[in-house]
Amino acid sequence: MKRTVDYIDGKVVMIDQTRIPGELVTIELSNTQQIADAIKTMKVRGAPAIGVAAALGVALAAKSAPDTEDEFVDRVYRAADLLRKTRPTAVNLFWGIDKIIATLRTARNSNLPVAEIKQLIERCASDMIAQDEEICHAIGRNGAELMPEEGHVLTHCNAGALACVSYGTALGVIRAAIEMGKLIHVYADETRPRLQGMKLTGFELAQDDIAVTVIADNMAGTLMRKGRIDCVVVGADRIASNGDVANKIGTYPVAVLAHHHGIPFYVAAPTSTIDFSLQTGDDIPIEVRAREEMTHIEGHRIAPMGIEVLNPSFDVTPAALVRAIITEKGIAWPPYKQSLK
Amino acid sequence: MKRTVDYIDGKVVMIDQTRIPGELVTIELSNTQQIADAIKTMKVRGAPAIGVAAALGVALAAKSAPDTEDEFVDRVYRAADLLRKTRPTAVNLFWGIDKIIATLRTARNSNLPVAEIKQLIERCASDMIAQDEEICHAIGRNGAELMPEEGHVLTHCNAGALACVSYGTALGVIRAAIEMGKLIHVYADETRPRLQGMKLTGFELAQDDIAVTVIADNMAGTLMRKGRIDCVVVGADRIASNGDVANKIGTYPVAVLAHHHGIPFYVAAPTSTIDFSLQTGDDIPIEVRAREEMTHIEGHRIAPMGIEVLNPSFDVTPAALVRAIITEKGIAWPPYKQSLK
Repeated sequence: MKRTVDYIDGKVVMIDQTRIPGELVTIELSNTQQIADAIKTMKVRGAPAIGVAAALGVALAAKSAPDTEDEFVDRVYRAADLLRKTRPTAVNLFWGIDKIIATLRTARNSNLPVAEIKQLIERCASDMIAQDEEICHAIGRNGAELMPEEGHVLTHCNAGALACVSYGTALGVIRAAIEMGKLIHVYADETRPRLQGMKLTGFELAQDDIAVTVIADNMAGTLMRKGRIDCVVVGADRIASNGDVANKIGTYPVAVLAHHHGIPFYVAAPTSTIDFSLQTGDDIPIEVRAREEMTHIEGHRIAPMGIEVLNPSFDVTPAALVRAIITEKGIAWPPYKQSLK
Repeated sequence: MKRTVDYIDGKVVMIDQTRIPGELVTIELSNTQQIADAIKTMKVRGAPAIGVAAALGVALAAKSAPDTEDEFVDRVYRAADLLRKTRPTAVNLFWGIDKIIATLRTARNSNLPVAEIKQLIERCASDMIAQDEEICHAIGRNGAELMPEEGHVLTHCNAGALACVSYGTALGVIRAAIEMGKLIHVYADETRPRLQGMKLTGFELAQDDIAVTVIADNMAGTLMRKGRIDCVVVGADRIASNGDVANKIGTYPVAVLAHHHGIPFYVAAPTSTIDFSLQTGDDIPIEVRAREEMTHIEGHRIAPMGIEVLNPSFDVTPAALVRAIITEKGIAWPPYKQSLK
């Protein structure tokens, strides 16, 4: 499979994830507004992938900006502001943008000419592509040892190649375990309302010939009760400094169920997902998305008239329910306040 | 709203639940095969409703059977066999059929003529309609006291008017609480894969102007964590003599979550749902339905190629997670082995 997000000939090339599993097509984006729209409409989604996409979005603005320094700087900051407003929860978005802004600041402090700063920003953003891949492989290597030699691993939503540049975080751990020769069968929660587990995780694992069984979100409990799940591994959109984890809605109940059944619950995420500015997960802003994601599926109305719906996109799993956090720098064990640092 | 299942002018009239919420239409069925098909395809569903429908299905066969006793008896037994094979989990189906067979046996033991037996069977089956309504109202009265004076009640799937002849079991409890003046807001799990919570519970509560918010099955955990759910009340398809409860898939995780958060989890069901022949819930047969219920929604394929899916229709909640079982004869508290008797 191609990279989920790439930078080719001065354009951002990404897989349009809203069209999977129907078709696997890439789109070319050449300006910041297009990147912002792609993030908002979830053509690109997954915390690491939107971090890279946002950085590239700022880089596109820098590249096309005028060469007069004030106008150039203004254009870059406005692009950063536009992108910061696209989605609130995944901290990688802000991390990606901040990396570009830091590059800009350092370069200006060194009094580099605008043309040179543009090159530095372009390189910084495009380098993040291969870096993200290296990070995912390192997460995979680190986490693979936690996977059973032979068994069933449950995941929720999509923390796979499609959530990153390639390979994935949670699915990277599974891929690495399989590469080590472990025999893993994946159970994937379908992940209502947007069905990323069914559509994206199901798709990318099937493409890689990894055995995957998709279940409704409400079926995992019974599988656990019957001893058919050996461990859980999920991604993260933001991790507070105490180890509380914001991830796709439905992650928290999986963690409670795993706890109830004595099944290890692991989180796999790059260190860029950790937000040390937040004490606990209660401070993580939770995105609420359109009610149509609940009331309609594939354009068909499933909801009766006269009802309310809720659609929070994420939930927070308290650190106490997380057995370990797998990062590219190693495995963090409780207490996370110390280990994450 | 009309009765979900009724018997009018020698025909079974039922709401076609597969067309809700799009439209509220009734269909007229005049033979056993049509009833069996309606149960299989879930035009009629809900344990109490299929109990009544199945009894009426046998009655239709009795009514149209020849008047020679052997042929008559054979026809009735064959109708019973056909109906027994429609769905395996809800014990009310078998209870409804057995009531008719018992009527037949008693009448034959009394050497009544076939014409008279036909009348007795028709009356037995049609009487079950009003009896089911009385039972639901009694369940409602008994359970209403357990509901908060003012608060939020979570339910799963549809144990409402549409699951019975009218009024409902779990939703009967909620209706009765509201009739007592309690201020109840309902959260309804949408209940994948068939979305009975969204489509049926949402529909019937909106029709009755009862405030209802539909959530994805994976959202209840977060609401509980935030203290936004005061209690849970669900129906049942079969209750073992130890109090283990088979109900729609997804009930068990709700019970675990309620337990984790110290929230009361109640089951509301007629005593006809109790299967004293089974020691525990492990002996309850769990229906597995077509994979298309998972891979397609409203005829649209949502699943990628090359994946497996699971589709168990029910799960079993151990009695230890059930705070009380509300029946028409009163509230059963643990230990259920004694109280259910």
